[in-house]
Amino acid sequence: MGQKIATRSKDYSQWYNDIVINADLAEHSDVRGCMVIKPYGFGIWEAMKDALDKMFKETGHVNAYFPLFIPKSYLSKEANHVEGFAKECAVVTHYRLKNDPDGKGVIVDPDAKLEEELIVRPTSETIIWNTYKKWIRSYRNLPILVNQWANVVRWEMRTRLFLRTAEFLWQEGHTAHATKEEAIEETERMLDVYATFAEEFMAMPVIKGIKSESERFAGALETYCIEALMQDGKALQAGTSHFLGQNFAKAFDVKYATKEGGQEYVWATSWGVSTRLMGALIMMHSDDNGLIVPPKLAPQQVVMVPIYKSEEQLNGVAEVADKLKEEFKAKGISFSFDDDDTKKPGWKFAEYELKGVPVRIAMGPRDLENGTVEIARRDTGEKNLVPLAEVANHVEYLLEEIQKNLYTKAKERLDNSITEVNSWDEFKEQIEKGGFISAHWDGTAETEQKIKEATKATIRCIPLEKKLEDGNCVLTGAPSKFRVLFARAY
Amino acid sequence: MGQKIATRSKDYSQWYNDIVINADLAEHSDVRGCMVIKPYGFGIWEAMKDALDKMFKETGHVNAYFPLFIPKSYLSKEANHVEGFAKECAVVTHYRLKNDPDGKGVIVDPDAKLEEELIVRPTSETIIWNTYKKWIRSYRNLPILVNQWANVVRWEMRTRLFLRTAEFLWQEGHTAHATKEEAIEETERMLDVYATFAEEFMAMPVIKGIKSESERFAGALETYCIEALMQDGKALQAGTSHFLGQNFAKAFDVKYATKEGGQEYVWATSWGVSTRLMGALIMMHSDDNGLIVPPKLAPQQVVMVPIYKSEEQLNGVAEVADKLKEEFKAKGISFSFDDDDTKKPGWKFAEYELKGVPVRIAMGPRDLENGTVEIARRDTGEKNLVPLAEVANHVEYLLEEIQKNLYTKAKERLDNSITEVNSWDEFKEQIEKGGFISAHWDGTAETEQKIKEATKATIRCIPLEKKLEDGNCVLTGAPSKFRVLFARAY
Ligand SMILES: [Zn+2]
Ligand SMILES: [Zn+2]
Repeated sequence: MGQKIATRSKDYSQWYNDIVINADLAEHSDVRGCMVIKPYGFGIWEAMKDALDKMFKETGHVNAYFPLFIPKSYLSKEANHVEGFAKECAVVTHYRLKNDPDGKGVIVDPDAKLEEELIVRPTSETIIWNTYKKWIRSYRNLPILVNQWANVVRWEMRTRLFLRTAEFLWQEGHTAHATKEEAIEETERMLDVYATFAEEFMAMPVIKGIKSESERFAGALETYCIEALMQDGKALQAGTSHFLGQNFAKAFDVKYATKEGGQEYVWATSWGVSTRLMGALIMMHSDDNGLIVPPKLAPQQVVMVPIYKSEEQLNGVAEVADKLKEEFKAKGISFSFDDDDTKKPGWKFAEYELKGVPVRIAMGPRDLENGTVEIARRDTGEKNLVPLAEVANHVEYLLEEIQKNLYTKAKERLDNSITEVNSWDEFKEQIEKGGFISAHWDGTAETEQKIKEATKATIRCIPLEKKLEDGNCVLTGAPSKFRVLFARAY
Repeated sequence: MGQKIATRSKDYSQWYNDIVINADLAEHSDVRGCMVIKPYGFGIWEAMKDALDKMFKETGHVNAYFPLFIPKSYLSKEANHVEGFAKECAVVTHYRLKNDPDGKGVIVDPDAKLEEELIVRPTSETIIWNTYKKWIRSYRNLPILVNQWANVVRWEMRTRLFLRTAEFLWQEGHTAHATKEEAIEETERMLDVYATFAEEFMAMPVIKGIKSESERFAGALETYCIEALMQDGKALQAGTSHFLGQNFAKAFDVKYATKEGGQEYVWATSWGVSTRLMGALIMMHSDDNGLIVPPKLAPQQVVMVPIYKSEEQLNGVAEVADKLKEEFKAKGISFSFDDDDTKKPGWKFAEYELKGVPVRIAMGPRDLENGTVEIARRDTGEKNLVPLAEVANHVEYLLEEIQKNLYTKAKERLDNSITEVNSWDEFKEQIEKGGFISAHWDGTAETEQKIKEATKATIRCIPLEKKLEDGNCVLTGAPSKFRVLFARAY
């Protein structure tokens, strides 16, 4: 490889980019703000997608697909929604090209102008609620528990691979319910699904909470979120679940006949996570040697590298690899044997380290004689000599161990990064050190805005688990009943 | 339900639409040409996707993701490609909306005009080969075996659900190879994958062949295809695999260092199937009672309907259903028990028939006494009384049987629909009857065009399996060495 990456302490932002590029996760395309997700990066996203999709289905959801384009007028139907979304969008105005009469390629055909412009979906509430209007007649049609895996576009001037791109991949759940209670239950259920996924698959501890009014999704009555902490002390919103009330039902006139024969507006939720999670995953565990992928999401869990001088030695190791392959297969562990003879073992070690393969097995001439292999774990770098008969079991155990260890380390970091702060001076000092600040706030958007302007810190969430205590707003001194979490964020 | 569908003999086209709509597969959206794929339809597509994706991976391919947008100038880089694709596209010209100064919603911000327009991908060869240029340096980087699952847009004025829509879902494989032979091998391998998928999963027999020059993909040197025959005697192209030669490598200047130290242009293939396959699947097996889904692609393979007068009877049947559920689960068979008490058994029978659920189990009071259930298969309508202890095994066998039977019936229909024709009069008469016509052709685009104009029949393919025989073109009488297949097509 020889591709050195920056260290976190020297240049965190460069370190992140180096990993994304050098571990073959993604790259910028020539189209402003649109990334190419490379096969290795996409393999991780596929593993995330599979796990989430299974959880959605287990909670009663089904997938469907809605149009990429949204008529411009739909966006203005829900007043708050348009304020939040209508601005930075890709707008389709024409539907045909024609040959340039000057013979220079193609030009847009001015005769093929659309009567109403189409917006490439930045999110699908409007087109979906326009559809639900046709699907919902009575309480018998409810609930509707639909999810969509899709690409969306939000024009961005300053982009970062995975973290902020004009086009990104995501899932968006859109559910319709007969009652407010049911809709809130659903909103909370999906927040729990996201939190469970983050913790069990991404080994990423999160704080569950609700957003302040000014950080709410455009059109929502309440936005629930999970917040994670990156290694540089900045927070990252990893998933949101919105209780939309009857806003979209009213905007698109979606009523249902109740059991009692009345007519009521339908209650709505929406919830989503995106390829942004890839950015969170990368920053959560990786180190100065490269990416670290939790075993449950690793496209490649175990790699074996032969060390040999003779053809005979290679054949010996290859025979062992063949046997191990069967044993790993039986355990559902993905394994590959890298016998590429154009690269040296040292090069391969560095490469798999860079790519974050959780377990590396090496086997040389002495191992062949002794019937052992060297097993290295990516997270700690620890190496062990293991007898052949024990390899499969040892690795199975190790993968679980690594998954747990990554979570434990991240959880410790998170727990140590929440600081209670009681004065404005303390606040300004502490925010420079990174992490979450737990502080009293007077509940006004004005104060929130002032704090943001002064420190770049935003209210990440009002934690669901919070103790009630009397206190005073860290900025204004006005009375407050509980603390909220501030941080600088991605 | 009460939703009557048209019969095939009376109005084939209406029959197709009725099934798509009434079986809850898809519907038109308010966005011209864009469909909504409903959960039940999407469930079938997901099953197809899963099966195909597995086959792609087994043949060494990986997934990736490339931008939705293509700079306009890219389309003109490959001369033939632009002729075939540049015309009917969705064109993004602006990236921002703003509030209408008159207070009426939002308008396109004239200040946010793109310097170069972006095209919503109609297919991704150009953006992908522009990317491959960065990935390929030497023979060591080859082959690249990448697939993408994506949405694409080709503006269409006349649309039909699944068969022809402006936006559709598909997969597009794009591979890069060091040699011509390897690329051709890949093209043929993927054609075989498609044919195997069509026959084993969709129970849809296909004819493998290559396209005549005028039916070739824009930019390809050779287009391989699989052709299927619908029940109305029209052909449907179900998948294509293109040998692109070095056309795209030359257009995007993608060369690689050979082992011997030279520089060569890279060889390319691309191959794809789309949600159009849903249209083929629907038309392949369904009957005047509704959809028929092959068991391997059915989102719901078995449904059980209780027939009862008392709560006690319902409880008895529900107990049986619980046991069966476990037995089916162990066999990997999807099963649901429909105890919705707002609908009568007769209504449910018709509904599941309409939706094409392969096996229906009914159990009434007498069955409870006798320890039997009634098992009905959707394809033939045949019913059997089966003792409880045998149900799981019987159904497992039945699902295989239905899968086979659907294929056998379709294969018989296909085999009986290929007619050898040796004169122009015969041709004109036969084409009205539908099916494939096997006829000699002089090999010229001119004759092909004349036949098309006279009869609406196109050359579907030059079959891969063909016998060489001397003959005379059915239109011009010019000498010909083998027969090709003509048909009217979707
Ligand atoms: Zn051990
Ligand atoms: Zn039987």
